[in-house]
Amino acid sequence: MEPVPGTDQVVTSDMIASGVHFLPGDPPDTVARKALRVNLSDLASKGAVPHAYLLSIALGPETDDDWLEAFAAGLADDQNRYGIRLLGGDTIATGAACLVSITAIGLVPAGGMVHRSGAQPGDALYVSGTVGTATIGLALLTDPGSAFHRLDEATKAACISRYRVPDPRVGLAEAVRLHAHAAMDVSDGLVGDADRILAASGCAGTIHFEEIPLPAGLDQADYAAVVEGLITGGDDYEILASVPPESEKAFANAASAAGIPVSRIGRLARGEGPVQVMRAGSAMVLGARAYVHGNS
Amino acid sequence: MEPVPGTDQVVTSDMIASGVHFLPGDPPDTVARKALRVNLSDLASKGAVPHAYLLSIALGPETDDDWLEAFAAGLADDQNRYGIRLLGGDTIATGAACLVSITAIGLVPAGGMVHRSGAQPGDALYVSGTVGTATIGLALLTDPGSAFHRLDEATKAACISRYRVPDPRVGLAEAVRLHAHAAMDVSDGLVGDADRILAASGCAGTIHFEEIPLPAGLDQADYAAVVEGLITGGDDYEILASVPPESEKAFANAASAAGIPVSRIGRLARGEGPVQVMRAGSAMVLGARAYVHGNS
Repeated sequence: MEPVPGTDQVVTSDMIASGVHFLPGDPPDTVARKALRVNLSDLASKGAVPHAYLLSIALGPETDDDWLEAFAAGLADDQNRYGIRLLGGDTIATGAACLVSITAIGLVPAGGMVHRSGAQPGDALYVSGTVGTATIGLALLTDPGSAFHRLDEATKAACISRYRVPDPRVGLAEAVRLHAHAAMDVSDGLVGDADRILAASGCAGTIHFEEIPLPAGLDQADYAAVVEGLITGGDDYEILASVPPESEKAFANAASAAGIPVSRIGRLARGEGPVQVMRAGSAMVLGARAYVHGNS
Repeated sequence: MEPVPGTDQVVTSDMIASGVHFLPGDPPDTVARKALRVNLSDLASKGAVPHAYLLSIALGPETDDDWLEAFAAGLADDQNRYGIRLLGGDTIATGAACLVSITAIGLVPAGGMVHRSGAQPGDALYVSGTVGTATIGLALLTDPGSAFHRLDEATKAACISRYRVPDPRVGLAEAVRLHAHAAMDVSDGLVGDADRILAASGCAGTIHFEEIPLPAGLDQADYAAVVEGLITGGDDYEILASVPPESEKAFANAASAAGIPVSRIGRLARGEGPVQVMRAGSAMVLGARAYVHGNS
C-alpha cells in the first residue's frame, strides 16, 4: 500500500461475535455490514475518511456456503458505498460462534486526527442522530417481554434494522476534524462514553436528558421505566463531539450540509467526571452507566 | 500514524484460535507470541520489516486475570524483540474459545514488496530452517500414540516449543526482497504452499525430498510411515523463496550473514503445478498436500 502524500493514517480494529454483537439468526449481509461499519464509525469520530481494510473471519456452525455468499454480497455492497477496498485477511474454522474481525485504515490530512482527549471546559457536547434506537432493536429481538413491543410496526422495524446495521457517520468526519476539540463514537452507551471523553480530557460535564435525541415515535411517558436503558445501552454508533463555543455554528452548519442531524446535549466544565445527567432539574441516578456487550 | 517517506506498507492479518492454532492448555505468553509471530512471518516473506500492529482478542473461559497478565507480558517481550509497536485493538468476551486476531503493518522500500506470483522457470526453491518440527510438536501434544514420543527428550521439547512459538524469519526479509523472485511463508505445509507459488506464478516445479531440512535428531528409517506428514503439516512458519540462478549465491550469503539457515530443495520449470516431490528417483504419492488447521 503506497502512502498518500500529505496524509496520516488512522488505524482501528473492532471485532464482532455471534451472540454478543449480532444474533445467530441475523441475515448474513447485515453481519458483514455491521462488522465493517463499526470500524467506519470509529474512523469518522477521529475525523478520518475510509481508505482500506482487512477482514478476518472465524466461521461458525451457521456459516455455510449460502451464508458466506450473502455475507460477501453485503460486504461488496458496503465497500462500494463507502469507497473502501479490501487489502487481505484470513479465514479460519473453529466450530464455535462466528466472529468477524476488521482492521480499517482511514486517512486524515497530516496532523489532523481527532482524539477523545482534547475536550476543554466550556465546550458544548453534541451527539449525532438518535440515541437508543439500537437498544430498542436488541430488546425487540431478544426480550419477548419488552415494553417496546407496543411500538408501532414501522418504528420497531427501524429499530431492529439499526441494531443490525449501524449508520456510521462517515459524512461527519470533516466537520469533526475541522471544528471539534475531541470526539468518539458512541458504541457502549452515551453516558459511559461521555464519561470516557471527560476522563481522557480531564473535564467535568453535564448532559440534559431532555436534549438527548431519543427515537421518534417514542412516547416517553409510556416508557419511563426503560428510558434510562436508552442512554446507557450499546450499538448506537453515533458520534459524540466536544465543540468549542466559537465553532458551534460552523459545526452545526457542516453537519447540516452533510445531511446528518446533530443535537447539543450538554456542556463541559472545569473539574472531573463522571458526567452529570440532569432531568427535570435533578441529577439522574443511573444504575449502569455503560453497556457491556455480553452473551445474549 | 505518519507515513515513512520512501516506503510502502505491507499489511497482513492472521487470526489464531484455541483448539485450532494453539491448545487450550498452552502457556498464555506463547499464545501471544504465536499470534504476533505468524504475522511477522508473513511480513518477512514479503520482504517487509515490522512496523506496527493492532490486536483484537476474544476472551475465552480460560482467560482469567492471571492468563491475561502472562499474555500481555509475552506480547510486550516480543514487541521489544521485534521492534514493533501496538497501535490499538479491541477486546471482547464471547464465552467461547479464546481467539486472537492481529493485523501487522510492515515497511518495504517503495515498490519493494515481494509477491508469491513472481517465480520463473529455472528459479531455485529455497526453504529456511527446518520443516516439520512444529508438526512433531503438535503430535506430541495431542496424540498419545504418536511414534514421535520415542524421540529424545531434548528434541521433543524443542519440537513442542516450536509448535507453540514460531521463529519468524524477520532477519531474512532483506535477502528475500533483494534476491528472490517470489516468496511466501510456509504455514499450511511445505508441499501445499509450494503448490501455491507455482499456481500464482504459472510454473511447474520439483522438490527433492532428500534436500528438505527435516528436524535434527530424526532417524528417518524409524519414521518412514510418518515422514510424509512432516512435509505436508502445518505451523512451520519458515520462508519458501524462489531465487533465480544468478542470485542464489547472494541470497545464500545474505541468509548466512543474517544467521538463518536456508536449503535449496528444488527448482521451477516451464509448465504448471502441482509440485513434484521426488524421493529416491520416484515421485512421491502424497495423501494430503496441505495442512488444514482444524479442531484438535
